[in-house]
Amino acid sequence: MKSDLDALMQEQDVDAILVTGPGDHNPAMVYLTGRSDLTLTNADLIKLRGHPPVLFHANMERSEAARPGLPTKNLADFHLNEVMKQVDGNLLEFQVCRYQMMLKDLGFENGRVALYGKADAGAALAVFTGLQHALPGLSFVSEAGNTLLMQAMGTKDEVEIERIRRVGQVTTQVVANTADFLVGHKVKENTLVHPDGGPLTIGDVKRRINLWLAEAGLENPEGTIFASGADAAIPHNSGSAAEPLRLGQTIIFDIFPCEIGGGYFYDFTRTWCLGYATDEALALYEDVLYVFRTVLSELVPGQSTRQALLRACQLFEERGHPTICSHPQTQDGFVHELGHGVGLNIHERPMFGQNAGPAERLHPGTVITLEPGLYYPEKGMGVRLEDTLWVRPDGRIEPLVEYPYNLVLPVG
Amino acid sequence: MKSDLDALMQEQDVDAILVTGPGDHNPAMVYLTGRSDLTLTNADLIKLRGHPPVLFHANMERSEAARPGLPTKNLADFHLNEVMKQVDGNLLEFQVCRYQMMLKDLGFENGRVALYGKADAGAALAVFTGLQHALPGLSFVSEAGNTLLMQAMGTKDEVEIERIRRVGQVTTQVVANTADFLVGHKVKENTLVHPDGGPLTIGDVKRRINLWLAEAGLENPEGTIFASGADAAIPHNSGSAAEPLRLGQTIIFDIFPCEIGGGYFYDFTRTWCLGYATDEALALYEDVLYVFRTVLSELVPGQSTRQALLRACQLFEERGHPTICSHPQTQDGFVHELGHGVGLNIHERPMFGQNAGPAERLHPGTVITLEPGLYYPEKGMGVRLEDTLWVRPDGRIEPLVEYPYNLVLPVG
Repeated sequence: MKSDLDALMQEQDVDAILVTGPGDHNPAMVYLTGRSDLTLTNADLIKLRGHPPVLFHANMERSEAARPGLPTKNLADFHLNEVMKQVDGNLLEFQVCRYQMMLKDLGFENGRVALYGKADAGAALAVFTGLQHALPGLSFVSEAGNTLLMQAMGTKDEVEIERIRRVGQVTTQVVANTADFLVGHKVKENTLVHPDGGPLTIGDVKRRINLWLAEAGLENPEGTIFASGADAAIPHNSGSAAEPLRLGQTIIFDIFPCEIGGGYFYDFTRTWCLGYATDEALALYEDVLYVFRTVLSELVPGQSTRQALLRACQLFEERGHPTICSHPQTQDGFVHELGHGVGLNIHERPMFGQNAGPAERLHPGTVITLEPGLYYPEKGMGVRLEDTLWVRPDGRIEPLVEYPYNLVLPVG
Repeated sequence: MKSDLDALMQEQDVDAILVTGPGDHNPAMVYLTGRSDLTLTNADLIKLRGHPPVLFHANMERSEAARPGLPTKNLADFHLNEVMKQVDGNLLEFQVCRYQMMLKDLGFENGRVALYGKADAGAALAVFTGLQHALPGLSFVSEAGNTLLMQAMGTKDEVEIERIRRVGQVTTQVVANTADFLVGHKVKENTLVHPDGGPLTIGDVKRRINLWLAEAGLENPEGTIFASGADAAIPHNSGSAAEPLRLGQTIIFDIFPCEIGGGYFYDFTRTWCLGYATDEALALYEDVLYVFRTVLSELVPGQSTRQALLRACQLFEERGHPTICSHPQTQDGFVHELGHGVGLNIHERPMFGQNAGPAERLHPGTVITLEPGLYYPEKGMGVRLEDTLWVRPDGRIEPLVEYPYNLVLPVG
């Protein structure tokens, strides 16, 4: 939890957190400023252990930088034009000098730094390698994946939960709008059609979804999966814009928007068949729903996510489906992880797959998705169901927002 | 230009380009795949000099990865579960091993690599430092800012120009919609009001803008500036959502959307006064428009951007305004750069400010903004005008899309 940051820094012998990159669409920055609406082109935030974060900003972004109410430092006071002259226009040296000056300004030149923030990978490698050479007393914590910051982010406080829940309420409303929109269309030759008789396409549906999200003040920077038939049989196929909506096919609708500016996400999936479902699709659907409900009912706070994954695999295999537990490379059956943490990143801790270590657990405050699915490329069908769950402080584990699990949308 | 990549690699002794990060909202990846609609959660693209880029992808993202038509490699074939066991779940070691295997698969273990792509800064530092230790024959080009890739991106081919122009056409249509929307409102006590008499706010206007953008298939990941009065006097103040729209104040409307998924941007600014302009605002406006038109008429292909900046400063100073040329830290007058390159990044080459070196020039194929402005915080007013210009191969320099320069929107 965010309030654990200083304790985690102490425990892991980290003296400072340095976050680079823009004010928005930058999970580490949004986490530490608490705001996703700061349109800072480039900012740097430095948190010394035991102190609030300090936000360094460009002169012409001073009013934006003041919004979170953190201590701020205006880079105009660092006379960077002089620095640029000293380094003769070398942009790499300029960046190294700039970080040196900022750290010095905070009286910090020796210690272990945990580095975060969205940046160009090559520039980050060059600049921070350069900074280490320039400040030999400084070292960077070597971490990837399970970082100190991701550990803090792994459990959410009440403010974060309410923000995620609000995104979930809008998300499920958009799903309901989409269902109504589809049901409101006529059918011609087994295909949904516009009033003018032309086919309704997946592109048409996605444009509507984007509109409803924008109206509600959300965005979907990672896109939306609305994949039908053969596309639905590949989990991360986002769907073909030009494809008409045909009756009887499985449609995977996986929607994962966030607050505008790259704030908190919600992740949600339903599988629909328009008009009718084939017996084969219905059988898959019932298996996925059975596994979803059984695993959900058995989740216990403190449990390792790996245990839940193994249970899902066991249940699917009992029903005759290959799974990643028994066939790690399988493209048929249950082929992906069972879920993942959700927050300012669409995928964060805890991990929920084959590679999840024993530390990946359902601690109180955790927000996770549960998303069993079955995929059969040769049959041209896929089924997935997903809710975003909250492990409540009182131990109950429940979807943050409820939504029905119907397979068939009645049309025609 | 993209077609210059191999020549640039040869010239700068770069053997391979490695791009990490997602398929979307990742300029380097979008540039090399040519598509902003690839919802690849994590991908890696490796281009050896003289060869097309190879896209490495997760098994369940194979259909998305196939879309650009590049050679692909499915990570399922690398048996990463085994690797994870070998490194005992250490995610940093896992990433280092994964890159080792991918490079080895391409027969590349010695040489100079230019690294790009959006990543967490700390993870990039840790993983690629680790990779250098693991593969001593490998070294990373140390570059920041003016990278090889940014040099290629600095001039655009016809396909890119048409994509940017299309975004510009939609952007200016949204600006026209916004003007119509404002003009369509009634006035009460010097403020625009809804039909129910409540004040129209900047938040209301921004919600409409987001809606029109979504309808047209664009997004604005960097937000929109719609800043009035005192807010307009600070260049990157994005405006206060709760603020009512008052007559006679200067409103800076700076809009910079891109193709969905993080594709090509367009950057555009107008300054409006609702109902009437004060003499003071009108005088500032006329000075900005004069500088805009004069500098634009004098731009010449091949010219350094610094020369244009100095000319803008000279013209502003002749009219009595402080500028960054004479007062680098000024918060009054002309306080920011004169423009910047635009493409898959909202800010790219050429630079157009005080720190622009002699290499920053208006080469044919360059797309730049020209955005002179004047800001007076104590007067509570700011004025900026901006078009996105194309330096055509035939030498003409012109806005990619035309839009009128009216200051006053007639309301009431």
